[in-house]
Amino acid sequence: MKFDLCRNLKEKSPLVHCITNYVTVNDCANILLASGASPIMADDIGEAAEITSICSALDINIGTLNERTIPSMLAAGKRAGELGHPVLLDPVGAGASALRTNTAAAIVDQVRPTVIRGNISELRALALGSATTRGVDASSDDKVTVENIGSVVAWVRDMANRTGAVIVITGETDLVVSGSRACAVKGGHPVMGRITGSGCMLSALMTAAIAASDDAFEGALQCLCMMKTAGERAQKKMAERGLGTSSFRDLLIDEIYLMDDAVLESEAKYELL
Amino acid sequence: MKFDLCRNLKEKSPLVHCITNYVTVNDCANILLASGASPIMADDIGEAAEITSICSALDINIGTLNERTIPSMLAAGKRAGELGHPVLLDPVGAGASALRTNTAAAIVDQVRPTVIRGNISELRALALGSATTRGVDASSDDKVTVENIGSVVAWVRDMANRTGAVIVITGETDLVVSGSRACAVKGGHPVMGRITGSGCMLSALMTAAIAASDDAFEGALQCLCMMKTAGERAQKKMAERGLGTSSFRDLLIDEIYLMDDAVLESEAKYELL
Amino acid sequence: MKFDLCRNLKEKSPLVHCITNYVTVNDCANILLASGASPIMADDIGEAAEITSICSALDINIGTLNERTIPSMLAAGKRAGELGHPVLLDPVGAGASALRTNTAAAIVDQVRPTVIRGNISELRALALGSATTRGVDASSDDKVTVENIGSVVAWVRDMANRTGAVIVITGETDLVVSGSRACAVKGGHPVMGRITGSGCMLSALMTAAIAASDDAFEGALQCLCMMKTAGERAQKKMAERGLGTSSFRDLLIDEIYLMDDAVLESEAKYELL
Repeated sequence: MKFDLCRNLKEKSPLVHCITNYVTVNDCANILLASGASPIMADDIGEAAEITSICSALDINIGTLNERTIPSMLAAGKRAGELGHPVLLDPVGAGASALRTNTAAAIVDQVRPTVIRGNISELRALALGSATTRGVDASSDDKVTVENIGSVVAWVRDMANRTGAVIVITGETDLVVSGSRACAVKGGHPVMGRITGSGCMLSALMTAAIAASDDAFEGALQCLCMMKTAGERAQKKMAERGLGTSSFRDLLIDEIYLMDDAVLESEAKYELL
Repeated sequence: MKFDLCRNLKEKSPLVHCITNYVTVNDCANILLASGASPIMADDIGEAAEITSICSALDINIGTLNERTIPSMLAAGKRAGELGHPVLLDPVGAGASALRTNTAAAIVDQVRPTVIRGNISELRALALGSATTRGVDASSDDKVTVENIGSVVAWVRDMANRTGAVIVITGETDLVVSGSRACAVKGGHPVMGRITGSGCMLSALMTAAIAASDDAFEGALQCLCMMKTAGERAQKKMAERGLGTSSFRDLLIDEIYLMDDAVLESEAKYELL
Repeated sequence: MKFDLCRNLKEKSPLVHCITNYVTVNDCANILLASGASPIMADDIGEAAEITSICSALDINIGTLNERTIPSMLAAGKRAGELGHPVLLDPVGAGASALRTNTAAAIVDQVRPTVIRGNISELRALALGSATTRGVDASSDDKVTVENIGSVVAWVRDMANRTGAVIVITGETDLVVSGSRACAVKGGHPVMGRITGSGCMLSALMTAAIAASDDAFEGALQCLCMMKTAGERAQKKMAERGLGTSSFRDLLIDEIYLMDDAVLESEAKYELL
């Protein structure tokens, strides 16, 4: 694969409509801007579909889900579908409450997202109905390992076929799976799980990536490589400078701003499955 | 002009009521505190007018506008008017949706803000009804240049006369225009557009500035100089240290904390028009 | 007292349900993660009680209070009580509006929090009905001094007896008071009041601390020592490096990540009253 995501984001500067949670929304906006993309956050039913129509893509994130914004998510998602805009769903906390699991399922059914990205517990809850989610983090006994990767890819591929979406599962090892292709991405650093928003930021950035790429699978794959590489580089600086996790958050976004495709060519660690 | 804004903010420490969006609200609170002012965020109709009455000024920002908070904006704005408190309107994304354009127009009509601050696309949508807004950023073909500054000042002055407000348009060149005066402010750095919230933070700080100044035009002008100067100084540090945009955000707020009037005297670049 | 909070937070990693304001929510999530705990933010009535049931403790913070989330706070609080989970109430801005004062009082009555933490103006408004609150900050003529500490402890102890809660008042000197015990904690630095969220972050962290400790009084006391010590260390780095308040916020959270119990043993400044 020839990396071209950094260039594409800067040249195309996709405008991304985000209906997302209020915990990490500032980080999502900043990572989009750092990459060359632009964010707009709008969640009122009175404008959600209209705002989507002037954008290139839609990021739906169900963290801090509430009754007011569920209709906005559906309305914007349907309008994006009509216009052929890519839509990414981040089912934050699916499995942790019925509201989240059911809303995520409704969005999958009614919006038909281009990409669904979450941790393995969230995706498992959505795909299989088994709820092992511990809050918004993956359950510790629920991860992709050398032993289970084959069976995980099997149920994820089944989900990809059933939903028509590219499915992205992130964790120590990331997976990106479509009906016909599957890749694993390694690297990154555990400290990425010690800040809030590393998943939300990845979803926002990935929405821009699929808008800026001809192929959603490859856009998602390159974006995973970009985030893991940025995480590694930021962690090295954090450790060298004796800093902690809040500085790590800044360094991570900084690395997205500083990233170019040549760095990804030399540092990304992905393999076809 | 004798710069005295930094001293005034520290001595008077105005308490600013902000009804603002959830994307950049933390940055708005932090820049106010960095300057010596104090923020209070309160957007429920059950307390909006009451909270305004204990404050010195009101900042109304329509980013992430929603049905719940529109009545709060109007109620707080009217109470502020009754009490003679200055009100600043930041019409974020006016022109990008009918909800935003119409709400901004309603606030202008019913609240009669002391200052209206936005980018040129937002102000043009509000003043002229032409919608060239690209999301929440100014359209790239819509900016103040040497060639068009005369015609821009003309329609902005007309808006100032019609609304009774001081109008502030920010971009590469900032303009502050009242019925009788006009100034341009230069400086700053394009990286300020690569973080979210540089506009929202400016509006919050400017609300404090007009509360701490005897004259709204001069408070707004000094505040523009303060923000552009802070942006330049923060960008130099970012570049010297090999940092990116998230660190730039921190350095920008840091510079507001570190700023004094002597720095503004020597570094601000403004001219009467 | 033997300090063991840092170890307990890392080993037990309590999952904390936060119903909190949108100004500082990101900082609250990040400080919890930095300490070893985990956050989940959920404020919709459709899931608030269900989310609480999978958590170890509940943090209720009434900044940016609104009609939509008040029933969620009460429902989650009651469920937490049924399950025996500790609940902390942060009555942000009690005294500044009737909505806040009355809601805080209703939560005290109906939820019976384990800990109530605020500044002295907020607690005074709640305990005595006298409103001297200046926005969300303590009124400047309303603080704990050598002269008044006896009379403050008296009314705070009365409040502790009446509510059954451990009462924590923070400021230049922090107090933690139960029906039978009282301690003062010194240290920290005034710059902690120049960022938004130092109080909210403390409340979030303290919720985790009481979940990770056998005794709420001692968990709260150790947490106060942890925050003051982190503030001192962060302020030293800020000053040495010529930084400002936004960098201070990052350094403060960094210090929570870097903290261990040995540092607390040697640097914490507390005394029994």
